[in-house]
Amino acid sequence: MTSGSAPCSDSAAQRLDELVAVLPPKSVVIDVDLLEKYRYDCARDPDGSVPTAVVRARSTADVQATLRWAGEHRVPVVPRGAGSSLSGGSTGLAGGITLSTERMREITIDPAARVAIAQPGALNAEVKAAAAEHGLWYPPDPSSSEISSIGGNAATNAGGLCCVKYGVTADYVLGMQVVLADGTAVRLGGQWLKNAAGLSLTKLFVGSEGTLGIITELTLRLLPAPPPEHTLVAMFDTIDAAARAVVTITARVRPSMLELMDRSSVNAVEDKLRMGLNRNAGALLLARSDAPAGAAGTEMELLRAACEEQGAHDIFTTDDPDEGAAFCEARRAAVPAMEAFGTLLLEDVGVPVAKLPALVLGIEQIAAARDTRIFLIAHAGDGNTHPVIAYDPTSTAAEQRARQAFGEVMDLALRLGGTITGEHGVGRLKAAWLPDQLGSDAMELTRRIKDALDPASILNPGVMLPTPNSPA
Amino acid sequence: MTSGSAPCSDSAAQRLDELVAVLPPKSVVIDVDLLEKYRYDCARDPDGSVPTAVVRARSTADVQATLRWAGEHRVPVVPRGAGSSLSGGSTGLAGGITLSTERMREITIDPAARVAIAQPGALNAEVKAAAAEHGLWYPPDPSSSEISSIGGNAATNAGGLCCVKYGVTADYVLGMQVVLADGTAVRLGGQWLKNAAGLSLTKLFVGSEGTLGIITELTLRLLPAPPPEHTLVAMFDTIDAAARAVVTITARVRPSMLELMDRSSVNAVEDKLRMGLNRNAGALLLARSDAPAGAAGTEMELLRAACEEQGAHDIFTTDDPDEGAAFCEARRAAVPAMEAFGTLLLEDVGVPVAKLPALVLGIEQIAAARDTRIFLIAHAGDGNTHPVIAYDPTSTAAEQRARQAFGEVMDLALRLGGTITGEHGVGRLKAAWLPDQLGSDAMELTRRIKDALDPASILNPGVMLPTPNSPA
Repeated sequence: MTSGSAPCSDSAAQRLDELVAVLPPKSVVIDVDLLEKYRYDCARDPDGSVPTAVVRARSTADVQATLRWAGEHRVPVVPRGAGSSLSGGSTGLAGGITLSTERMREITIDPAARVAIAQPGALNAEVKAAAAEHGLWYPPDPSSSEISSIGGNAATNAGGLCCVKYGVTADYVLGMQVVLADGTAVRLGGQWLKNAAGLSLTKLFVGSEGTLGIITELTLRLLPAPPPEHTLVAMFDTIDAAARAVVTITARVRPSMLELMDRSSVNAVEDKLRMGLNRNAGALLLARSDAPAGAAGTEMELLRAACEEQGAHDIFTTDDPDEGAAFCEARRAAVPAMEAFGTLLLEDVGVPVAKLPALVLGIEQIAAARDTRIFLIAHAGDGNTHPVIAYDPTSTAAEQRARQAFGEVMDLALRLGGTITGEHGVGRLKAAWLPDQLGSDAMELTRRIKDALDPASILNPGVMLPTPNSPA
Repeated sequence: MTSGSAPCSDSAAQRLDELVAVLPPKSVVIDVDLLEKYRYDCARDPDGSVPTAVVRARSTADVQATLRWAGEHRVPVVPRGAGSSLSGGSTGLAGGITLSTERMREITIDPAARVAIAQPGALNAEVKAAAAEHGLWYPPDPSSSEISSIGGNAATNAGGLCCVKYGVTADYVLGMQVVLADGTAVRLGGQWLKNAAGLSLTKLFVGSEGTLGIITELTLRLLPAPPPEHTLVAMFDTIDAAARAVVTITARVRPSMLELMDRSSVNAVEDKLRMGLNRNAGALLLARSDAPAGAAGTEMELLRAACEEQGAHDIFTTDDPDEGAAFCEARRAAVPAMEAFGTLLLEDVGVPVAKLPALVLGIEQIAAARDTRIFLIAHAGDGNTHPVIAYDPTSTAAEQRARQAFGEVMDLALRLGGTITGEHGVGRLKAAWLPDQLGSDAMELTRRIKDALDPASILNPGVMLPTPNSPA
């Protein structure tokens, strides 16, 4: 790792001059006010630092030139799309540079092949919109859809609300161009739907959080637009009953959305939107069906019956798109609404669906034991939950309790056979927990692959894996 | 690589004694008659050899002990499930040993978690049957379902007929235990449906054809059983029209099966089954819908309309399960029926669906130019085709023309932006073509990962990658 940050030593300044020289004009940001914007991502990792410089790449060639320079000088490189990481995957690094893809935004749709070719800085919502112009659909829909980049989505294997039926980002990445640590630009995959030729390298880079290479182009599978969705909202007396309803539903049917909100989340949303949600219910379940015309009614009846079996009341169903959209917006408004209650730590643990009731119960116990507020929202249909810990940032003790709870929620998920992150990635915030999930042999395997592809460890050091030679 | 084969030199015999000593009794086969069974797999690669010994492992520990021994003595190890590889992935290697998982057949179903835990030697059909006992469904259905092992399915990322709607083996492997070249047994993945913790190692091992490790246990995702299927059979005057119908269909709907047979395949089946198929049609399309009750009718109408638009005639539809099954059996009977026409070379090329018409046309031209018979069957819905080349094994010239055509079909697929293998894997038979598809940079990347995990290259050498130091 290089030493220090601004003010640059002579040799650091000289190195930066070299970087400026190999890139097109105005690619390298060194203005301190501008650099400050790259200190944090949406995780706001308190250890975030202002990078020495930011490269705003416009092309694969720019990324190659930057990595060749970084390799030569052993300068760490933090890849960054839109900076919406919730796990600190693009946190600025002192002495490092940040490679931003924010200017690489091109999207081309090939309607005959039903693929999108997208540069990594394009936003998820922009890819969706471009596909929709051709009557096509890019399914993955992280809640950050409007602000997160498609490159970041691929780097973290982002999920979303539709995953319960339509899968995650990895299921839509058919091919990519990726620049390796040594500056080589490699094309992987293609436009075919089925492929057994060679190692699954495309899949390896998806979810690698910028630690193995920097994606500069994605080939994404598009689907025909799905039929209109029907929507069901059900209230339960207890969150445990709602979790059991999720288990019942997923044993019978594949809804196109199956979201859970606990009482405190419902109240936070109601505070903000005043849409008349029942504040006294223990939990709310939001389910949708996009079964084809003729079958949607049957699927909605299956959803309703499963909810009723688990004691749901106030079941509301609609095939009106605007009414359905209003409930989805309520769900998406949950995290912003929680911001009124303090600083947020957004968890992302997942468990096998059958363990959901045990997870929600355990989280309530952690909240009580740590005297901290934990909201719970969940992509419940695939067992992926977002416990959101809110604390008073002016109280050191409160922050400490919140961080304790944050770790304990991950420990709980692991005890239940789950994962510390379902869709946000490990980043810097969760790197310390990864060995508890993977075990030492899988960590060693990870390290061997990392070393084979990035021997000097210049790519996003500290993310996922500990920095070599750093204290364990 | 070790030298020679039987009769063993003293040191080779001594080495084998060591292997026998570290394994349970009766694990090591050295009887020459028995060994002969492990010379070939279903690809019948003419370069197949009788291995020095076969280890019939019963446990992960057996696999570990074998690989530790092999690593110490630098003996190549060919992993083998049921030996049904169509690309020579488990061809016997002179001087090497074959590690067979045929005795590792246990299957446990966890209905609450909706997963199967299967040992690698269990057959695909056995996994399906075990799941069905709990009302659950393991979708991937290679045509070899009755004879291929689930471990081999995972090693090749096997596909099948349902992939057009339900995806390939990789989409169902949630976790595994895999033994690395150094004998370490690593657990990867878990029972969760969504996971962003660490590199996608599970995905990396799926499709790695035994070159990175030997899978000793799989955790497989199961789905609720789907609704009953409706079936459509349509005849077209030309295969080109049928291919265009496939493009039209996939733009509008996701059938649960979409298979194509050309005129010669239809005739081969009709020769054998005498079920009254129209021998004069240019091609037959077999499509199924498992849309939920109420929607199946609509989906069948969409299928019919797309076929009619492309000039189909003799369109037959049925919701009778036995009638539908009869047509599926006809499709599955195609390759055995072709065996009456000579020795078969089974191709497995894939192209983007929109390129299907160009592919089928090009294959006809190759058949004419090489004066060789090429049947065509295809998992057409995802662009994965099986041109089957039949030649007279008593004619060296015919065999030579057939092998030329085999290569030219792959070259054609690559020119159309396709893949040399959609679901069978590269094995030994197609290793020479892999660099043409991947390019030198992706090959180098593959080599770096291989070297990181198997530095002595003892795992399935010659499969996928050329053996180090072998002539290019």
